[in-house]
Amino acid sequence: MAKSRFEYVKNYELPDPLLPNAYIVVRVDGRGFHKFSDAHNFEKPNDQRALDLMNAAARAVMDEFVDVVLAFGQSDEYSFLMRRSANVYSRRRSKINSTVASIFTSAYVFNWAKFFPGAELLYPPTFDSRVVLYPGEKEVRDYFSWRQADTHINNLYNTCFWALVHDGQTTREANKTLQGTNSKDKNELLFSRFNVNYNDIAPYFRKGSVLVRVDPNPVPVVLLEAEDADDSGSETPEAALASAVEKRLSVEAKGEEAAGPKQAGGSAMPTTGAHGKKAKPYEGTSGEVVVLHEDIIRNPFWRARPWLLA
Amino acid sequence: MAKSRFEYVKNYELPDPLLPNAYIVVRVDGRGFHKFSDAHNFEKPNDQRALDLMNAAARAVMDEFVDVVLAFGQSDEYSFLMRRSANVYSRRRSKINSTVASIFTSAYVFNWAKFFPGAELLYPPTFDSRVVLYPGEKEVRDYFSWRQADTHINNLYNTCFWALVHDGQTTREANKTLQGTNSKDKNELLFSRFNVNYNDIAPYFRKGSVLVRVDPNPVPVVLLEAEDADDSGSETPEAALASAVEKRLSVEAKGEEAAGPKQAGGSAMPTTGAHGKKAKPYEGTSGEVVVLHEDIIRNPFWRARPWLLA
Amino acid sequence: MAKSRFEYVKNYELPDPLLPNAYIVVRVDGRGFHKFSDAHNFEKPNDQRALDLMNAAARAVMDEFVDVVLAFGQSDEYSFLMRRSANVYSRRRSKINSTVASIFTSAYVFNWAKFFPGAELLYPPTFDSRVVLYPGEKEVRDYFSWRQADTHINNLYNTCFWALVHDGQTTREANKTLQGTNSKDKNELLFSRFNVNYNDIAPYFRKGSVLVRVDPNPVPVVLLEAEDADDSGSETPEAALASAVEKRLSVEAKGEEAAGPKQAGGSAMPTTGAHGKKAKPYEGTSGEVVVLHEDIIRNPFWRARPWLLA
Amino acid sequence: MAKSRFEYVKNYELPDPLLPNAYIVVRVDGRGFHKFSDAHNFEKPNDQRALDLMNAAARAVMDEFVDVVLAFGQSDEYSFLMRRSANVYSRRRSKINSTVASIFTSAYVFNWAKFFPGAELLYPPTFDSRVVLYPGEKEVRDYFSWRQADTHINNLYNTCFWALVHDGQTTREANKTLQGTNSKDKNELLFSRFNVNYNDIAPYFRKGSVLVRVDPNPVPVVLLEAEDADDSGSETPEAALASAVEKRLSVEAKGEEAAGPKQAGGSAMPTTGAHGKKAKPYEGTSGEVVVLHEDIIRNPFWRARPWLLA
Repeated sequence: MAKSRFEYVKNYELPDPLLPNAYIVVRVDGRGFHKFSDAHNFEKPNDQRALDLMNAAARAVMDEFVDVVLAFGQSDEYSFLMRRSANVYSRRRSKINSTVASIFTSAYVFNWAKFFPGAELLYPPTFDSRVVLYPGEKEVRDYFSWRQADTHINNLYNTCFWALVHDGQTTREANKTLQGTNSKDKNELLFSRFNVNYNDIAPYFRKGSVLVRVDPNPVPVVLLEAEDADDSGSETPEAALASAVEKRLSVEAKGEEAAGPKQAGGSAMPTTGAHGKKAKPYEGTSGEVVVLHEDIIRNPFWRARPWLLA
Repeated sequence: MAKSRFEYVKNYELPDPLLPNAYIVVRVDGRGFHKFSDAHNFEKPNDQRALDLMNAAARAVMDEFVDVVLAFGQSDEYSFLMRRSANVYSRRRSKINSTVASIFTSAYVFNWAKFFPGAELLYPPTFDSRVVLYPGEKEVRDYFSWRQADTHINNLYNTCFWALVHDGQTTREANKTLQGTNSKDKNELLFSRFNVNYNDIAPYFRKGSVLVRVDPNPVPVVLLEAEDADDSGSETPEAALASAVEKRLSVEAKGEEAAGPKQAGGSAMPTTGAHGKKAKPYEGTSGEVVVLHEDIIRNPFWRARPWLLA
Repeated sequence: MAKSRFEYVKNYELPDPLLPNAYIVVRVDGRGFHKFSDAHNFEKPNDQRALDLMNAAARAVMDEFVDVVLAFGQSDEYSFLMRRSANVYSRRRSKINSTVASIFTSAYVFNWAKFFPGAELLYPPTFDSRVVLYPGEKEVRDYFSWRQADTHINNLYNTCFWALVHDGQTTREANKTLQGTNSKDKNELLFSRFNVNYNDIAPYFRKGSVLVRVDPNPVPVVLLEAEDADDSGSETPEAALASAVEKRLSVEAKGEEAAGPKQAGGSAMPTTGAHGKKAKPYEGTSGEVVVLHEDIIRNPFWRARPWLLA
Repeated sequence: MAKSRFEYVKNYELPDPLLPNAYIVVRVDGRGFHKFSDAHNFEKPNDQRALDLMNAAARAVMDEFVDVVLAFGQSDEYSFLMRRSANVYSRRRSKINSTVASIFTSAYVFNWAKFFPGAELLYPPTFDSRVVLYPGEKEVRDYFSWRQADTHINNLYNTCFWALVHDGQTTREANKTLQGTNSKDKNELLFSRFNVNYNDIAPYFRKGSVLVRVDPNPVPVVLLEAEDADDSGSETPEAALASAVEKRLSVEAKGEEAAGPKQAGGSAMPTTGAHGKKAKPYEGTSGEVVVLHEDIIRNPFWRARPWLLA
């Protein structure tokens, strides 16, 4: 009664649905984490406790959103991929975006003590987030390649920078030392001056963290390695490879066949992606989440998990 | 280099600026707080610790965003009003929305132990949020009226409901008892059965919480009361009133005068709102935040703080 | 049957409602009209037939949309103001925008022969359009001031330019002659060289065209002139003025009173704006459209038509 | 100067770019064409002059937008497909949408006399339009299938309806006669009662109109027919088919190879789609537009023109 008189203001809440069937990426970014990491004495260039905490926060997002099939994190940022058919919250942009930001933040603060035992959390850290749509598989792959390439570049720089600082340079001097250097120069510097082979550094730091659900029907590793060969273009065409590829193609063909009638059925929002031998649709519910620190730029990672982009 | 090859994916992050000079309201809502309040044994119908914690979280948002001039909270929700000229984050919708959600969430978890000493936080609570634009003052006032009217309705119901339950009814029975009752019936029930005069219940619970910055140049109370008189339509034309109104109008006229040349200057986003004797523009920075529990549906609250809608 | 299988694609048509109660301005712009005017030998600097045709096209838009209360045109562009409460097509942006563009275009081509008798239309002219929202009255007034100020600037320049060209200069020379000149210089040039007093040029060309619906309850002109006095600030406070203003205020006060209860009723989209003696709400249907060529930057135009911004 | 004071209002024109690399479909719809076709005595159920005029208007759109690779029309509507890489007007939604509506409208009115010689255009017809994005090829195909299936359904109905009316039924009676009938019933009715075999009716009316640019490097028809065979699944696996498919695949493979390095180059907005033997990128400029009246639901149409969805 008294209520209804004002209720018209709800009409100003306009709809903001995301384009159906486009891939949804949500990226969470730390706000003021340079200061935050200083205030909490994060180890440089990488503090494993802090990264573990980020991973725990990302895991909380994946536990809540079954549509999130992949997450990639580095430093103070995390990107989440929702499968294209996701219909969570009717794909409302603001709802999805703010909920992801809130879950991530909440889990970060909640789990602080677990990952930083004995270190007090001095003030509440915060994150912002954004939603980006990608219409096709290529863009999604390139998005994650972009983030992992960025990880590489940043980590190589930071590794050099902090080696110099720990060695006695001021931060200004270290900056100057690195100015104008390329990747090769930096690798060289690490090796010649600090006897560090960059490639020996933990993949955790070099590659960032990848969270994916465990596949119930994994593709044999031998097959994946064979497939990857076609990327570099330099592998010899061994019989093993040939047969592996052949097997792989036949697996995919069966998958397509199985999925065919379903697509022909013409549901507006296909909720399935066929993969593996049984071409069983991905239900979005299965799958324990695991943390990996491996390459997601090249093909094998994606070929082993066809449901990610299905 | 390797980076730039993928960097094009940034082009898919489309701009989402909010309409300039419209009022921005951000409403934060608890997700699954029925369950959360049960799990943490919130007192019913109102748990002051929980409301204090909500207020602390809201205060954190206001500490961060000087453009937030007003906040209103009840139960597990909070609404924030940004002055229309706010240009924070270039008015990017997703950035504002996610940041508010994150700050609120983070402060809530961070401050839990302070407000719930001895009570363990069992799992991380989360909030979603949305941004709503209002073009005019009337809609903003009606928005906050809507939320406070809702507070009244909910609290009256809950007060009855939990009185019945504490008195021995099951929740189902209590629901049934209240079915079809209007406000008068509920007031009657409280009084006749529990000897409770609803109006004696703490304004905190009846009115919700209002956070505003302290005004450096407050308008005298006598003036405000006089002004408010014209709302009810029952006023006597006292000399005191007449002179108060007159004084008030002359204050406003001076304010307009002072602001005039500035507006004539034609800045796209007027960042000031004149008020008070000195007609000094509101800078968005001043002002300690105070918590009130008073009526924001009628005029006096707003008349005393002309800068809120300036 | 066969149909429904594909019908899901309709789900990709996302909603695009405009913010309620914000003023809607639609601006139509000619595409490639420099070339078009050359091809059709438009008189320079102004071709009245072409402007009359533009006005006819604008009138067609106003005939179709009763919510359009005002239109302003110059050269090859036209701006339409829809009252803030307009709910046409549920305020769908694309629908409104494309329909205005199409009506305008269609009427332009349809009426060509009427305004250019004997001159063949060589190819179909086209227009694009955009929708802009303004939350407040000030911005709407400033929008139309912007367009009329632009009219003045362009027309003064073009008048000089074509005078020089008709006098024998090449277009390049004329451009150079005018480079760096201000308004005063151009007025001087017209007067000293061509014996033209710019202010004697037809208001049609200097002010552009204003289309408004005739007001059924016009405010007396004497009153409006008095009101306008407060703009320049230099008028003497004559008794006539004082009483006119007083009368005016009492008219407005009555209007507000009458409208008051309606607003208090709290409809989400107030469809009325009170004005004039009877404070009768503007229904959006009444009113023959008239073409004016007068100042819309200063107050009198707007004060005489309070329903425009109501 | 005077100008700049108001120019801030331009800031209210917010950006509205379409998601990059998604397919753009613009659908133009006649407004009030039932009345328009009556007023201008269109022949029923189909007036070829009117359809020819629609096609001419659609052609004008394609002449203007080289990014429009396909258009499909029926009755008073037309759909335009822009290739996904289109960057016209920086993909601004309102600009694209209003321009298409205006071009179509203008060409319709401009060309009226040519297609309706001797028949006066009584009033200006208008169209609205909307932009819809589709992330993938499947949705685009399904969109056009949706429109062509709709053509079939409507035309079958209208053919029966007007046959009955021309035979003496009132429109109400004809409606009633057809109520509850399915496709088979209607075919039967046409044949038994009017001796009309529906499939003998001109494809123009049964299939609608398809506008495509002529392919400079057409794929041999034999190949296309062979390819189509895999749709129904019932064809015998002839040697001819096998070899045709093989040839086709090798053509495509070459195309991919050629395009590969380009894509690897990672331009944000690939502006090319390889097809045909030379794998020459589609430039968007080539190609005379032809009108077809053929099936676009099944594969051959699309397989013969791989650049449409490239």
